Amino acid sequence: MNDSITGRTGLTGLLGSPVSHSLSPMMHNDSFRHLGLDYVYLCFDVGEKDLKEAVNGLKICGIRGFNLTMPDKNRMTELADSLSPAAALIGAVNTVVNDNGRLTGHNTDGIGFMRSLADYGFSPKGKKVTLLGAGGASTAIAAQAALDGVEELTIFARPQSRFHDRTLRLVEDINRQTACRCSLEDLADTSTLRATLADSSLLVNGTPVGMAPDTDACLINDTSMFHEDLFVSDIIYNPRETRLLRMAKEAGCRTSNGLFMLLYQGAEAFRLWTGQEMPVSIIKERYFR
Amino acid sequence: MNDSITGRTGLTGLLGSPVSHSLSPMMHNDSFRHLGLDYVYLCFDVGEKDLKEAVNGLKICGIRGFNLTMPDKNRMTELADSLSPAAALIGAVNTVVNDNGRLTGHNTDGIGFMRSLADYGFSPKGKKVTLLGAGGASTAIAAQAALDGVEELTIFARPQSRFHDRTLRLVEDINRQTACRCSLEDLADTSTLRATLADSSLLVNGTPVGMAPDTDACLINDTSMFHEDLFVSDIIYNPRETRLLRMAKEAGCRTSNGLFMLLYQGAEAFRLWTGQEMPVSIIKERYFR
Repeated sequence: MNDSITGRTGLTGLLGSPVSHSLSPMMHNDSFRHLGLDYVYLCFDVGEKDLKEAVNGLKICGIRGFNLTMPDKNRMTELADSLSPAAALIGAVNTVVNDNGRLTGHNTDGIGFMRSLADYGFSPKGKKVTLLGAGGASTAIAAQAALDGVEELTIFARPQSRFHDRTLRLVEDINRQTACRCSLEDLADTSTLRATLADSSLLVNGTPVGMAPDTDACLINDTSMFHEDLFVSDIIYNPRETRLLRMAKEAGCRTSNGLFMLLYQGAEAFRLWTGQEMPVSIIKERYFR
Repeated sequence: MNDSITGRTGLTGLLGSPVSHSLSPMMHNDSFRHLGLDYVYLCFDVGEKDLKEAVNGLKICGIRGFNLTMPDKNRMTELADSLSPAAALIGAVNTVVNDNGRLTGHNTDGIGFMRSLADYGFSPKGKKVTLLGAGGASTAIAAQAALDGVEELTIFARPQSRFHDRTLRLVEDINRQTACRCSLEDLADTSTLRATLADSSLLVNGTPVGMAPDTDACLINDTSMFHEDLFVSDIIYNPRETRLLRMAKEAGCRTSNGLFMLLYQGAEAFRLWTGQEMPVSIIKERYFR
């Protein structure tokens, strides 16, 4: 669109720190251009302390919407005029839509994850899901899974985690606000993990364990916990195949990594801003191989 | 540059209201691309009331710099951390440079005008200048002419103008702060105008009189006031040749319109932000014909 940036060209972008390495500018700008939409997407290095003033200024400047990444996602829940059900449940906002000065906070991370599963022809609706971890990504996945009709969700996390109280509240909120039965177990309790996996249809690693450079790390070391009807998903995409996914594949499981979660959280933000679908096949081809 | 907008692409832009019709995005974005500079230039519709918050937010977002147009130029003098000599003298800022959160206000309108004269091989340095009008553009031209070494400047304006007190202060400031001898006369006093023009080298119309649609209007109706050594410049560029310029040409004067003032005020802003010269011949070819 730069060939035709004019006084009418709209702004979108990403706030966080650091942001300069992000893939998002490429995926959104390519999509705008492909669809002939008159927007650009830029990155702004803004920390939590300055977020309020930055958001206020961008709102006055008429920004159409923006993404948030660390460390700004939680703080944004307090700055939005309203929150989507997922953003409220997760307690974090990764996408804001500005409708004439009224900011709605969304969280498309969980939606991105669910759409990435759909790409593999897998739907967890009405099924049992086991989720490892209770950090930001896990929280988003848990909330969206519950909102999207997962029947039973078991979260395995470390009780000594700094997120523990937040996780307890999340489990309570999910049980109160959705039809999903949610429980929290100790990640160290391998016998409960084994029993839970036995009748789960989906296992998700929502932790960074196994990410480069520590690619030998893996939260499950006993392949007998896997079964052929288990779909195993890792939110990590570096490496493309973590040790967890490699073991799962060897046990006959279908698998997916976190690459398309990243793509689809962006695609959903794009849809919220423009009302149009991101041309994901083109974007996959260019940036997600 | 949109082919390669990344997380590192910098922002510049224009604040004012209205702004959507502006030529500036085209001229700056083309220049960035031509020189391979990783910036984009966008327009933000922001009025005086919201200017402080918008500027603060954009500063936090790391904007490299921005232009201001009506109605924001005067208010910006209070928001900048420091002002260039010209911006201080004019009392208006049309260009801001952000150096790591420190905002310097400049005014490149007068510089733009002076560079446009240089394009015609004319320099008013050491000469006598007659200026019609005391609005924003005239003020910028008066201040820069004085700073650039014009020997004597006579401003003709209406004493009943709402700018009258401001103009009196400007004349006083120019006389105190520069080597230029500056005086203010009544625009209705044609005999003084005639006498002043007789030994002036440059006549500038800094008023909108003669602009479309009222193209028959002209502040000088007696061609005998012109002489062959008088350069006549009109800040109007619609039409390209005002009645004033047509009459001046017929009297054998060299003339210039306001088109290149617009170009060069932008070129100077570009230089302040990037440290590089705008490729003006390309920009002229595309947008200033």
